Amino acid sequence: MTAYSAPLKDMAFVLNRVLDLKGVSSLPGYEAAEPALVEQVLEEANKLARDVLAPLNAPGDRAGSRIENGVVRTPDGFKAAYGQFTQGGWNGVPFDPDYGGQGLPWLVQQALAEMWQSANMSFGLCPLLTQGAIELLHAHGTAEQKSLYLPRMIAGDWTGTMNLTEPQAGSDVGAVKTRAVPEGSHYRITGQKIYITYGDHDWTENVIHMVLARLPDAPEGTKGISLFLVPKFLVNPDGSLGERNDLRPVSLEHKLGINASPTCVMAYGDNGGAIGYLVGGENRGMECMFTMMNNARLAVGTQGLSIAERAYQQALDYAKTRIQSRDANGSAGPVAIIRHPDVRRMLMGMKSGIEAMRGLSYLAAWALDHSKRNPENAQRARAQRLIDLLTPIVKGWCTDLGIEIASTGVQVHGGMGFIEETGAAQHYRDARILPIYEGTNGIQANDLVGRKIVRDEAASMHELIAEMAGTLDVLRQQPGDDMEVVARALEDGIDALELATGWLMATFPEDRSLALAGAAYYLKLSGIVIGGWMVARGALAALDGLSSGGEDASFLEAKLVTARFYAEHYLPQATGLLAAMVEGGRSTLALDEGQF
Amino acid sequence: MTAYSAPLKDMAFVLNRVLDLKGVSSLPGYEAAEPALVEQVLEEANKLARDVLAPLNAPGDRAGSRIENGVVRTPDGFKAAYGQFTQGGWNGVPFDPDYGGQGLPWLVQQALAEMWQSANMSFGLCPLLTQGAIELLHAHGTAEQKSLYLPRMIAGDWTGTMNLTEPQAGSDVGAVKTRAVPEGSHYRITGQKIYITYGDHDWTENVIHMVLARLPDAPEGTKGISLFLVPKFLVNPDGSLGERNDLRPVSLEHKLGINASPTCVMAYGDNGGAIGYLVGGENRGMECMFTMMNNARLAVGTQGLSIAERAYQQALDYAKTRIQSRDANGSAGPVAIIRHPDVRRMLMGMKSGIEAMRGLSYLAAWALDHSKRNPENAQRARAQRLIDLLTPIVKGWCTDLGIEIASTGVQVHGGMGFIEETGAAQHYRDARILPIYEGTNGIQANDLVGRKIVRDEAASMHELIAEMAGTLDVLRQQPGDDMEVVARALEDGIDALELATGWLMATFPEDRSLALAGAAYYLKLSGIVIGGWMVARGALAALDGLSSGGEDASFLEAKLVTARFYAEHYLPQATGLLAAMVEGGRSTLALDEGQF
Repeated sequence: MTAYSAPLKDMAFVLNRVLDLKGVSSLPGYEAAEPALVEQVLEEANKLARDVLAPLNAPGDRAGSRIENGVVRTPDGFKAAYGQFTQGGWNGVPFDPDYGGQGLPWLVQQALAEMWQSANMSFGLCPLLTQGAIELLHAHGTAEQKSLYLPRMIAGDWTGTMNLTEPQAGSDVGAVKTRAVPEGSHYRITGQKIYITYGDHDWTENVIHMVLARLPDAPEGTKGISLFLVPKFLVNPDGSLGERNDLRPVSLEHKLGINASPTCVMAYGDNGGAIGYLVGGENRGMECMFTMMNNARLAVGTQGLSIAERAYQQALDYAKTRIQSRDANGSAGPVAIIRHPDVRRMLMGMKSGIEAMRGLSYLAAWALDHSKRNPENAQRARAQRLIDLLTPIVKGWCTDLGIEIASTGVQVHGGMGFIEETGAAQHYRDARILPIYEGTNGIQANDLVGRKIVRDEAASMHELIAEMAGTLDVLRQQPGDDMEVVARALEDGIDALELATGWLMATFPEDRSLALAGAAYYLKLSGIVIGGWMVARGALAALDGLSSGGEDASFLEAKLVTARFYAEHYLPQATGLLAAMVEGGRSTLALDEGQF
Repeated sequence: MTAYSAPLKDMAFVLNRVLDLKGVSSLPGYEAAEPALVEQVLEEANKLARDVLAPLNAPGDRAGSRIENGVVRTPDGFKAAYGQFTQGGWNGVPFDPDYGGQGLPWLVQQALAEMWQSANMSFGLCPLLTQGAIELLHAHGTAEQKSLYLPRMIAGDWTGTMNLTEPQAGSDVGAVKTRAVPEGSHYRITGQKIYITYGDHDWTENVIHMVLARLPDAPEGTKGISLFLVPKFLVNPDGSLGERNDLRPVSLEHKLGINASPTCVMAYGDNGGAIGYLVGGENRGMECMFTMMNNARLAVGTQGLSIAERAYQQALDYAKTRIQSRDANGSAGPVAIIRHPDVRRMLMGMKSGIEAMRGLSYLAAWALDHSKRNPENAQRARAQRLIDLLTPIVKGWCTDLGIEIASTGVQVHGGMGFIEETGAAQHYRDARILPIYEGTNGIQANDLVGRKIVRDEAASMHELIAEMAGTLDVLRQQPGDDMEVVARALEDGIDALELATGWLMATFPEDRSLALAGAAYYLKLSGIVIGGWMVARGALAALDGLSSGGEDASFLEAKLVTARFYAEHYLPQATGLLAAMVEGGRSTLALDEGQF
């Protein structure tokens, strides 16, 4: 009923035909990622996702995690599933082989992450956060910290968490009050953190918390924040576990969704102070945490794609099997509802939106690989600019669209969609967290405008726009009118993005509020256009495949249709977004608070 | 925390300044609806909505209804609240005084309905359905049926239900299998119905079911459906209750939202057949049920407005009190989040969307009054055309936008929004049923295109377009540039609607599937443009009020701002919708089922 199987063909299409996995596997250190091997890896992963993780998704939602005698119990089956996950080596795919990782490209990890999060988002959150913590420690930890913690975290023996939020410090991380007092070679941490995903659980014997706190003499705001590694159990120099540290989960939140994943209120230092170890230098906590957050933001954006794919698979199955009413041309008897035009519209909207998100989020992973491994300095720098630019767009656009598609998934089911047992409603509930956590989408929009556009004088966006414009010429060289339609819509989109960028650059220095009033539109416009570019690149790859003959013509021809659908249904939103952004800021800001 | 108080000023503004309640109260039979009296009525209603119904909304959601020993128990407090509701006479406001109703206009009932549904949608569903059943019986019942049932239903002593759906007959009502066999002056009903809202409850001693069933020799499809009144307890000729009828609630659905309202699987005739009474003649069931459905569709559209208003009030309260981060211009300290531009954008989007929905749905009620009571035949007919046209638009557009605004309400709360105790998530869950029940929004779109546009050769839409175009001239006569901006955007919207209508008229006879592939876009386009017209009319009314001086200048000036915001943020969607509709149909339909 709520089955899931990874869309392996679609994934392979993006990896091999659109994004050149072959090229990524020729980067130094990524030689193992031969496309043929990657294909096997994805097939193997799908067995775990499809047969183990996906079936736990609905029962996990119903059971939820609970807190008992001060420790968190996750739903039945989750611990065993995690055992299979780590034993299969899935936790260590993209990490440094020096610490036990498999050193595969992030592009491969991206396809795997899509699967885990589609199969079971509540489950997938724990490895998602561990991954960010590993990245943080790898980038900023001391050699000793790395050798003590990384191998166990990469193996998945210990998991990681991210401890930023406090009741008064949500989007405003600088307002953190948790205190850290030096004591010999470590620090004593005291304070309360909220919304800590997998802050405690029963999967592993240790949990490694990455905690933002403030030293006694620290400057105010984000400049005075330091990052501490605070393990649940202290770790002896030989790697064995020592004493229980002074921290505990106080309570779990009762949430709208992702109910299997425990969201903890964490208390540090109720009995004298939890022992923590400084990572990355005093008052450099935000810089360190951004390593983790940037990684997690891409991963959360991918969750938007994943929940949409899951919702789509379920809606499609229902639409193909639910028989109701004659078709529009008056068939003899009732037909499967996929034959009704409005159901078809919903399914096409889901399918083409998903393909755009997949293209966009995999592009980000591709850029990440090049930013890390490309031997050319200029190429690395270019890839770094691209990944910096794309991060808030992937996070913001894919999560907003993920909600929309999960909602459409409910709608396709009609009355059945509103019944919890059907499972469609869970995706709608689960999806709702995505635009909120890892920085609300409002924060992403501000980050995009302030840090990614204005600060580099829109250089990276102009670079991307130039590259997208180059695709227009290729599209126009293709026979038939499909690609002409795609080119025209994409060009309108690119023009809108260019005008919007120019408006931002002119407006931000003059009137920051006015510029930021349009930030969310700018993010959405960017997502729609860059997503459209990736869908168009997919169409070109499909044409290429078709012209070389061989198998899968029907699959490749469908890519031309979804590209045209996207061009006709998504891209026309671009001009409206541009107008709202450029014309609409003053009315956004005009009312006094008392007039609301 | 989740307080609600009716927006009495906004309601009065639409009733008196935009829609001419005074004129409605001069229609024959509506003389009691003097604006001064109506103001008192609304204030009184707000006490019940604010102090009794709204506080039960969250506890009702948590407790849910349950079934015990074959009868339904609603959450604590609901029965008593219903007692206050009926004792206050609120159940009988718009009904025929001959049967105990108060005979007030539907325009007044509209404002009241908005309150009840904002305060507690799960509660409000029961009177909503009773209202539809009363309308049905009033229009199609025999004199005896009316005198026996209407007074008790209008008083609220007995409630009404709508029994259409069966497992194989959802959107396809014609597939109903429930059987009715004649037996003397009544019929024996046998079958199972699903999704029966308030199919049983503990508020009143009797429940009057309106049940669609099929006679033994009935033609296939909707032409062979008859409607039966099937009371839970048989009613003696003197109005006293007789035997328990052969029907029962079998189980309750476990739903995503509206948990306080029982959604029943109903079994009829397990012990020989439930006794039912034919309403409206054999095989005329659909015609009768449409009286109920049209009433309920407007009411469900109003629920979209109501849930949006509730979500807005809560988000606004949070945005004014949650302190987080400095403002965009670097204030000395952190500020209330309403001062951040992106939060402001969300709130303005909610506020202006709500004002458009309020204008549109109240306009429908105004048209209903004129269709019933205007002494001029031509005016009555004109009003009837308008209400027929608006019904699917109110139902479809207000419910889709209701979800969107409820989702934005969660987003304004950040992490708190995802925590169930906050209450914002309940609105997001509750709202999700609205585009599904009373005919999915896909069905509404098909109804709009097939029955309301094509069948009358777009006459009623052209009539409305001409009227909207007349407003453009008035807007352009106003000083300042606000109304010029509004006029321009509204004109673009009207042009798009006109082109879309022409395309439909040309396309539908040639290729019905292609036309219907664009039906949802057409409905949304209609909603945005007609909603925009109502907001513009509001702005003109505000200018009028401002020019005559006096109180409330700040309130009236805000109407100018929301009109401009709507023009700059909602209306620009019109051209994209037109493009998707006119250009995008073929790609919607192009894939084979196997290519999905």
